Amino acid sequence: MTVTEYRVQGMTCGHCENAVRTEVAKLEGVTTLAVSAADGILRIESTAELSDEAVRAAVEEAGYEVAQA
Amino acid sequence: MTVTEYRVQGMTCGHCENAVRTEVAKLEGVTTLAVSAADGILRIESTAELSDEAVRAAVEEAGYEVAQA
Repeated sequence: MTVTEYRVQGMTCGHCENAVRTEVAKLEGVTTLAVSAADGILRIESTAELSDEAVRAAVEEAGYEVAQA
Repeated sequence: MTVTEYRVQGMTCGHCENAVRTEVAKLEGVTTLAVSAADGILRIESTAELSDEAVRAAVEEAGYEVAQA
């Protein structure tokens, strides 16, 4: 299992968390997600390492931005 | 046509606006809605005067509160 954490900008509420959750959950191999608007954190557990690009694209699809690491 | 304006607490983003919009739009007689998270304003145009209680209930159904007038 792989755990990756991203900082996501712009989430303000539970609806925002759900929007991010919905898009990132579509990525193959994702098993567990923790999304916090309060902390701006997206924590992904997956069966294998995810492409950074795919995660960023999913977050953007939801309408938010991954902060530069 | 009747225009009524309410202050709504707790909306932070476009998703919040949509949640309020969806519930208030269900009230009979509503023709036009303006909802602003930035200003905390819900502006309702309706064919007849709406029950204050019904509007408050709709806003609460969406997960928010009408501020006391």
